[in-house]
Amino acid sequence: MPSLTLIGMGLHDEKGISILGLEKARSAEVIFMERYTNVMPGLDLGSLEKMVGKPIRVIGRREVEDGTEILREAQLRDVVLLVAGDPFIATTHVDLRLRAIKKGIQVGVVNASSIISAAPGAAGLQNYKFGRSATITFPEPLSLVPYEVLRTNLSLGLHTLFFLDLRVEEERFMSAGEGIRMLLEIEAHERRGVVSEETLMVVLARLGSTSQVVRAGRAGALLEMDFGGAPHSLIVPGKLHFMEAEALVTLAGAEEEIVRRNL
Amino acid sequence: MPSLTLIGMGLHDEKGISILGLEKARSAEVIFMERYTNVMPGLDLGSLEKMVGKPIRVIGRREVEDGTEILREAQLRDVVLLVAGDPFIATTHVDLRLRAIKKGIQVGVVNASSIISAAPGAAGLQNYKFGRSATITFPEPLSLVPYEVLRTNLSLGLHTLFFLDLRVEEERFMSAGEGIRMLLEIEAHERRGVVSEETLMVVLARLGSTSQVVRAGRAGALLEMDFGGAPHSLIVPGKLHFMEAEALVTLAGAEEEIVRRNL
Repeated sequence: MPSLTLIGMGLHDEKGISILGLEKARSAEVIFMERYTNVMPGLDLGSLEKMVGKPIRVIGRREVEDGTEILREAQLRDVVLLVAGDPFIATTHVDLRLRAIKKGIQVGVVNASSIISAAPGAAGLQNYKFGRSATITFPEPLSLVPYEVLRTNLSLGLHTLFFLDLRVEEERFMSAGEGIRMLLEIEAHERRGVVSEETLMVVLARLGSTSQVVRAGRAGALLEMDFGGAPHSLIVPGKLHFMEAEALVTLAGAEEEIVRRNL
Repeated sequence: MPSLTLIGMGLHDEKGISILGLEKARSAEVIFMERYTNVMPGLDLGSLEKMVGKPIRVIGRREVEDGTEILREAQLRDVVLLVAGDPFIATTHVDLRLRAIKKGIQVGVVNASSIISAAPGAAGLQNYKFGRSATITFPEPLSLVPYEVLRTNLSLGLHTLFFLDLRVEEERFMSAGEGIRMLLEIEAHERRGVVSEETLMVVLARLGSTSQVVRAGRAGALLEMDFGGAPHSLIVPGKLHFMEAEALVTLAGAEEEIVRRNL
C-alpha cells in the first residue's frame, strides 16, 4: 500500500533498529536512508542491506529537504525512510511528514533509542532534572543560545544536555573539547559567571557502542582529553541529588571533591 | 560471563526491543523482566519468551528495589533485566546499576525508544523547546511540583511534557483527563494564572501502538474525551514555531484558532 514510514535506527549501528522497524523495512518496496542529520559510526550499509533483504538508497540533505522524489515514490509504493536515532528530532522529518499528509500519503513511524534519553541514563542523571537542551554550533557566526540556555537552566538548578554540531556531508564533527572551549569563549565575552574551567561537566562519546566513553570532571581537565571519534555530546549538571553525585563518581570517573560542589 | 545487562523494550510491545537487545537476551543465561516502572499494553509474555527462546521471570517492585536476587544471579551468570521503555529513566535502575558495580559485576545497557523522545515527535513539537518534565501524581497528597514546573516553563516560552502516575501493581493508571483536572484543581487553589480550560494541551495515548492517539485542543474540551486504555501522557505547549502550530493542526486535530494563540 502506498505509504511513508519513518523508522529510527537508534544510536550506533544497524542493530539499533527495533524488531518492528526491521519487519517494516523488510516488507517495504523502496528503502531510503538519510545519514546527514546524525552520525552512526558503526553502521555498515552492506550488513543492513543483508538484514532487510534489499538495496538501500542513501540520500543526502538536498534530497530529504526537497522531498520530491521520496513523496512521489510514497504515492505509488510502500516506502521506508531510515533515519539515525529517533525520527522527528530533526525538523526536516516533521516537515516531510506534514507534506506527505497533505498529499494524502499515509505516514507511519517506528521509534528507536535517542541520545535525548540515552545520555542522561548513561551518566546516571535523572531525566526530569534536565532543562531545555541546546546545540553548540560551529562559530559561523558564534551563537549565544547555548550559553543563555545554560544560564537559565543553572539558575533553576537544572542539568543541560548539549548536542554538538555535526556536518556529516563535510565530515566535520564538533568534539567535546571544542564544545567546552566554545562555552568558555562566550563566557570570556559575556562575563556573566555561567561557566569556568572549574565547572563540572560530563562528556559522552559514541553512546551505544562498545567503545562508549562517559567521563565527568572539571571543564578545564576534560578540555585536554581525547575522547576519540564522533559523535560526542556534553552535559553540564546543575544541582545533584546524592545518587546522581554517586553515579558521576562510579560511572563517569569524577573526583568526589568536584562532584560535591554541585550537591 | 557473570554480568548484568539492562535492556530496554521500547514503548508498546515485544517488537520494541532492538536487534542488539534481542541478541543479548537470547544469549543470556537468566532473564528477568520488571513491569512496574512502566506499562506496555501490547506486551505478550509468551510471544516474548518464544522470541528469546527461554523462560522470562517477571519480577515486581519489591524484588527490583531489593535487588538481592538479581545481583546474586549476576555474580554467577550472564543475567538480563528487561525493562519497559529505555533503562535508567527510573531511579531504581540507576540504583541497581551502582550496587552491581560495587559488587564487581560488569553492567551493560541496551537502549530503546522512550516516551521522552517519542512524545514530542508524535506531536510534531521540537525537542529543544521543551523545558523540564514532571509527573502528575495521584493526590495522596496533592503535589504542587507539576504546576510549578509548568509555570516556570511557560514563563520561558517552553513546552512541558507530563508523565501521568501509574501504579501497575494496583492497576491504577492516571488518564489524561485526570491529569488535566489535577492541574486545574491546583490552579483553583494557587490562582497564579498558569492554566485554565482555555489552555492548549496535547494528549498522547498508547504511543507506538496501532491504536495510538495524539489529540490537541482546549484543556476543557480534552477533559471530556475518552482516549482509551493506558498509558497516557500530556504536553502543554509554550510558544509555538509556525511549523509546530501546523503540526498540531495536521497531526493532532487542533483547531487553528486555538493553536494560533500560542504563536
